Amino acid sequence: MLEIKMGVAKAGLKPSGEEDILVLAFKPSSFSAVFTQNSLAAAPVIYDRQVIKQTDKISAIVVNSGNANAATGKRGLENAKKMAQLVAENLGIPQNQVLVFSTGVIGVQLPMDKVEKGINQACKNLQQLDLEKAARAIMTTDSFPKYYSSKHTLNGKEYSIVGIAKGAGMIHPNMATMLAYVFTDLDIDNETLNTLMKDITAKSFNSIDVDGCESTNDSFVIVATGESGIKVSEENIAEVKENIEKAAVELAKMIVKDGEGATKLIQINVHSAKENEEAKKVGEAISLSNLFKTAMFGNDPNWGRILSAVGQLHLDIDFSKVKLYLGDFLLYDGEPKEFDREKASEYLKTHREVVIDLYLNRGEGEWTYYTCDLTYEYIRINAEYTT
Amino acid sequence: MLEIKMGVAKAGLKPSGEEDILVLAFKPSSFSAVFTQNSLAAAPVIYDRQVIKQTDKISAIVVNSGNANAATGKRGLENAKKMAQLVAENLGIPQNQVLVFSTGVIGVQLPMDKVEKGINQACKNLQQLDLEKAARAIMTTDSFPKYYSSKHTLNGKEYSIVGIAKGAGMIHPNMATMLAYVFTDLDIDNETLNTLMKDITAKSFNSIDVDGCESTNDSFVIVATGESGIKVSEENIAEVKENIEKAAVELAKMIVKDGEGATKLIQINVHSAKENEEAKKVGEAISLSNLFKTAMFGNDPNWGRILSAVGQLHLDIDFSKVKLYLGDFLLYDGEPKEFDREKASEYLKTHREVVIDLYLNRGEGEWTYYTCDLTYEYIRINAEYTT
Repeated sequence: MLEIKMGVAKAGLKPSGEEDILVLAFKPSSFSAVFTQNSLAAAPVIYDRQVIKQTDKISAIVVNSGNANAATGKRGLENAKKMAQLVAENLGIPQNQVLVFSTGVIGVQLPMDKVEKGINQACKNLQQLDLEKAARAIMTTDSFPKYYSSKHTLNGKEYSIVGIAKGAGMIHPNMATMLAYVFTDLDIDNETLNTLMKDITAKSFNSIDVDGCESTNDSFVIVATGESGIKVSEENIAEVKENIEKAAVELAKMIVKDGEGATKLIQINVHSAKENEEAKKVGEAISLSNLFKTAMFGNDPNWGRILSAVGQLHLDIDFSKVKLYLGDFLLYDGEPKEFDREKASEYLKTHREVVIDLYLNRGEGEWTYYTCDLTYEYIRINAEYTT
Repeated sequence: MLEIKMGVAKAGLKPSGEEDILVLAFKPSSFSAVFTQNSLAAAPVIYDRQVIKQTDKISAIVVNSGNANAATGKRGLENAKKMAQLVAENLGIPQNQVLVFSTGVIGVQLPMDKVEKGINQACKNLQQLDLEKAARAIMTTDSFPKYYSSKHTLNGKEYSIVGIAKGAGMIHPNMATMLAYVFTDLDIDNETLNTLMKDITAKSFNSIDVDGCESTNDSFVIVATGESGIKVSEENIAEVKENIEKAAVELAKMIVKDGEGATKLIQINVHSAKENEEAKKVGEAISLSNLFKTAMFGNDPNWGRILSAVGQLHLDIDFSKVKLYLGDFLLYDGEPKEFDREKASEYLKTHREVVIDLYLNRGEGEWTYYTCDLTYEYIRINAEYTT
């Protein structure tokens, strides 16, 4: 059984005064972690990258919200290290078994007196993991807590997968950050986890877009405690992967759904591309198009914006073979199709989740990408705050 | 002296009922043309690409606004050809000396009866080139006509450079298109023009961004009539290039200034990059950041969004060596700098054109990129129209 303890505290880092420190404690476990590729990586990301080279087990995670500890130089790095040290001392575990994460304002040093008090308090009040409460403690301007839980059986034994995530909210006064943690009590070694991680991240957190902006703090960790006694082997790995991937995809979709100002989750299924990689690129190109995203907000079945976003990739796509659906409406089939624009607009108006299917008819590649619409509220959130 | 005739007509392609056909006629001239790289290229772009392989002189240009003739298949291509044919017949010139351009709605066939009447009428009413009038005829939702004119002397002889452009307006119901034409009475051969074209386009129309979306119809043509009698040679080419580039950059800046919903023209000077190409990439990355563009709209000197957009390129930039100015305000110098946020915000509030200087301190590369802010009005223009 998955035994994870949590502690939270109000350190006073968030303007709202809500919980802003989360400590998760568990038995020394296998793990895999991926971080932002942004070369302006935040101090905790730099710190964690060093730590994971020195350990093959972790047993605690500490997250502060309200301050990203990014672009903070040497002092920022010392502060990230100090956070790990405080958790290690409080829990009596090796410091290199603690990973550190931050999310919030960029370019401001952490108020370490507050952080220290918060971490001490969180560590003193450890309780059973409450997913919603944990998810709330890492929220910044997220409008709802993001968590996931599922149970499965394998060879007659039960195992669990749980996860929390945050993201897509604007952080005073800087950028959105995505953090996600998935736990399972399966017994999986690090090497296998790292292999799974690559595919799972590609299909989930690397296939979503809100505004094309990559944060300095993005992080995703999978932890396998082994407590279920189920050893993952070649025979069952496909099934296990599917279940963990489901958790990651569902958390990723919640992030897009909570995208800044978003009114719609848009699922873009790209079919019959040359290969999967091409299908992913095409899905991403559509997701990044401001013109497409504003059309979706305006409930406008504006297929020209979808195709031209694909054309912008400069691939040798033959558009006379391309087919495009919005929901059940066939919009384009090698040439403009007659369709009921009013009903297609009504479909957009009445659905919180809409689906686009694009067939390139040049191979077997497939991918699903998730994005949201671009709205007045996005502008308000990101512009109206003036420092 | 530059002798260009023009004719305009109201063919009824634009909802406004304004002039929507422009014909420019001039003596058979050297030229260089570049087109969109979007693989969903519009019919006139496909047609022109064929034509320019068959001729080394052009003597007429025809543009219709209100319909892009894009994603229109074989019939669209026939219609583009028909437009060239009509102009050639009316003016008594070879058909392959006519280039054709369209801008407007995507995916709708041209109403050729209207187009034919319009072209006939425009060709019958040729007059001296009136730059403003010509620029107006190719406008779609541009809020002002874009034209440029300059006179220069070389070895005691006078020569002219004039140009018109359109772009950055939304076109019912699809995307913005950029069209630009620059004329000079210098005597330059096609090969030299093509060489100049590459650099000039890079510094002007390929260094601007409004919303990251590349149109299916973008085109830029330089025409050299030779009427000044000044032969461009190795000795004077640098000077000539500078003057033509100036025309292109000024027209490009007008397009950004008229960017959909824009309240600010933002000039991003990237200094001391590894090479020019890297500086251009960095300028482009900042220009494409929705978070940066909304901050500019909100008059927020939010330097974290600038640096993180640069970090998103995944170059090995050492941010401890980076320096960033907004106007005269030093915001970041290897670490966050203290600056008067209120005054910096005031600078943004009170300037229609703002300047950002970013020093990477890793080489000699430099580039200037132009973009605009992202505003409520952009969303309104692109979303509120519902088909």
